[in-house]
Amino acid sequence: MKNLPFGADEYAARLHKVRAEMSVRGLDALFVTDPSNMAWLTGYDGWSFYVHQGVLLTQSGDPIWWGRAMDAAGAVRTTYLQADHIIGYDDTYVQNPAKHPMATLAALFHDQGLATARIGVEMDNYYFSAAAFLALQAGLGQATLIDATALANWQRAVKSATEISYMRAAALIVEKMHATIREKAEPGMRKNDLIADIYHASVTGVDDYWGDYPAIVPMAPSGADATAPHLTWDNSPLKSGESTFFEISGTYRRYHCPQSRTLFLGKVPQKYLDAQSAVQEATAVGLAAARPGALCEDVAHAFNSRLQKLGYAKDSRCGYPIGLSYPPDWGERTMSFRAGDKTVLEPGMTFHFMPALWLDDGGLETTESILITENGAQCLCNTPRELVVKG
Amino acid sequence: MKNLPFGADEYAARLHKVRAEMSVRGLDALFVTDPSNMAWLTGYDGWSFYVHQGVLLTQSGDPIWWGRAMDAAGAVRTTYLQADHIIGYDDTYVQNPAKHPMATLAALFHDQGLATARIGVEMDNYYFSAAAFLALQAGLGQATLIDATALANWQRAVKSATEISYMRAAALIVEKMHATIREKAEPGMRKNDLIADIYHASVTGVDDYWGDYPAIVPMAPSGADATAPHLTWDNSPLKSGESTFFEISGTYRRYHCPQSRTLFLGKVPQKYLDAQSAVQEATAVGLAAARPGALCEDVAHAFNSRLQKLGYAKDSRCGYPIGLSYPPDWGERTMSFRAGDKTVLEPGMTFHFMPALWLDDGGLETTESILITENGAQCLCNTPRELVVKG
Repeated sequence: MKNLPFGADEYAARLHKVRAEMSVRGLDALFVTDPSNMAWLTGYDGWSFYVHQGVLLTQSGDPIWWGRAMDAAGAVRTTYLQADHIIGYDDTYVQNPAKHPMATLAALFHDQGLATARIGVEMDNYYFSAAAFLALQAGLGQATLIDATALANWQRAVKSATEISYMRAAALIVEKMHATIREKAEPGMRKNDLIADIYHASVTGVDDYWGDYPAIVPMAPSGADATAPHLTWDNSPLKSGESTFFEISGTYRRYHCPQSRTLFLGKVPQKYLDAQSAVQEATAVGLAAARPGALCEDVAHAFNSRLQKLGYAKDSRCGYPIGLSYPPDWGERTMSFRAGDKTVLEPGMTFHFMPALWLDDGGLETTESILITENGAQCLCNTPRELVVKG
Repeated sequence: MKNLPFGADEYAARLHKVRAEMSVRGLDALFVTDPSNMAWLTGYDGWSFYVHQGVLLTQSGDPIWWGRAMDAAGAVRTTYLQADHIIGYDDTYVQNPAKHPMATLAALFHDQGLATARIGVEMDNYYFSAAAFLALQAGLGQATLIDATALANWQRAVKSATEISYMRAAALIVEKMHATIREKAEPGMRKNDLIADIYHASVTGVDDYWGDYPAIVPMAPSGADATAPHLTWDNSPLKSGESTFFEISGTYRRYHCPQSRTLFLGKVPQKYLDAQSAVQEATAVGLAAARPGALCEDVAHAFNSRLQKLGYAKDSRCGYPIGLSYPPDWGERTMSFRAGDKTVLEPGMTFHFMPALWLDDGGLETTESILITENGAQCLCNTPRELVVKG
């Protein structure tokens, strides 16, 4: 491919930011396993994160991609790295209880002059298992592993102009996905047939903005199942008198724009109208609070206090940062809109504002992906914010 | 939902198998974080594995589901567990560097009388991070954590009749997906438009066999990109003179039937015809070796020695077990078809036989999902095994 999503300057700027933070923390090297961080630093893009792999960064030179030998070809195809910065371990290390690939990484650290270094690792990441940590540590000798969970993720918080343009492309795609739901959903339609149409819309994309796979598949529970936030789909027919929420994302070049809307087939009970109205009002207040200089917790407080005043309670966070992601999460896992989070909002930050309410007999999700601008929060999508009522 | 995919007897049999192995290893309890093991033991089905969660099993009584409080509703909806066996931790523990949810799991161990127990954990699993291990260990007191990676996965190796019926349904779906490629692919078609059609076919499913999401998205590289095994797609047009392989899976109720085929647009170069012919011949020999009583390495040896005789070499494993899976892997991560793997094949085991060849200028994947029967390997799909040649 070598059709890298960003120019050399942008990758250089990213390395610079990460290295500055490494210096602050006294790290000689950083080994990232989060596929989003690997991609953000080098361009690497492949579904190979089910085996152990990562990117090693020191204070100078290009990063080193390390992974399964067969995936080295993918690193050659998708990163700006020269072949001597792409290191593969042989296939006998793959899913083999008798030997762990991290032994080869420890050897690589040694070869790179890191035998006594302080090396940051992402201790709380899906792709750095407990066994990986212990195997790496066992092979290390005098080097020290330091927890650097989310060090790189934090550097991704403020988006560049190109990143924002990709998220706006993803926004166009998710608008089209929601338009597909409005157009196609009707009582009796099998849920999976509607999901098939949503997938088709998302991957086709909008004009030249082709659709990539989202880091989370569509979540689309109906009725009582919608009291739970993370159920997916089956072939049950859509029913009159039931709500279904669709938490879905448009995705362009691995950048996400998630957005949820709730469909109600038939006459909407007053209870749902009241809840939706309260969420809308609290959302407006929450979004108004999402201004540069405000803290993450200010947004949560503005939203939650209005919601409580209107008679509703939500005990989970109401937003998290988004951008470049790989499964299983489209969030960046740094700040959250919740009490106690004192992170200061800056222009260029992007969030999924997530004022979902799960009621006792169903769920309501009407969410927005937002960009913090000098003038406050800007919604990335124009999808109508009301309940989708049909049938 | 409570539309559990298996009856009470089957879940009971699974618990029995796992407990027997726990006894062999002297474990008082087992905590599984692999979403496939969670689902296999309890029915739990939700896209919530991006936060810390798991299932705790002791030698008696129902298992306990433990996870984020908001996902407890999903456990109520999808498992056979009673409410008092579903334990949620509050949302402030989610992706919060200041406190780790594993502290609440350690407390749960204590409450369950496991204060001095030997507790198995899946040390090398995506969803049990290094930080999770250390946080759990710090809260444990006198209990001991023992590596039980893949303990439950091994019990899943031999499939029940119902599991096999689900995999046969997934086989029908992947046949339809490959038929869609044969029907739709043509020079100039944007790759993402073809992927959209493949997704649509997969999620629509076949009759009552509705399509679930696969644990790996379609991998579909063309030309030089197909020298790498795990690249996905973009909007490049399909080109005459290029091969594209499609490694895809049908999925029914989380059970997988992966299968790869290679498309060539235009006149196929002799080099590809020769390679394909060699792979076909070696595949037939490999499949013939996959009989009850044979070892995993026998299959690899049969395949590789014939392939070498024909002038080709493959240095990666040529198969792995499949079944129930969640992202990021549709393999079971136990045995492999490769030298040194002495696992004995048994009737009811299911594998993705994966004789892929990556050449210097492209790739060839013609793979089969197989069931080991008393009479040898049976292919789950009837997809024609030749190259797909069009345009």
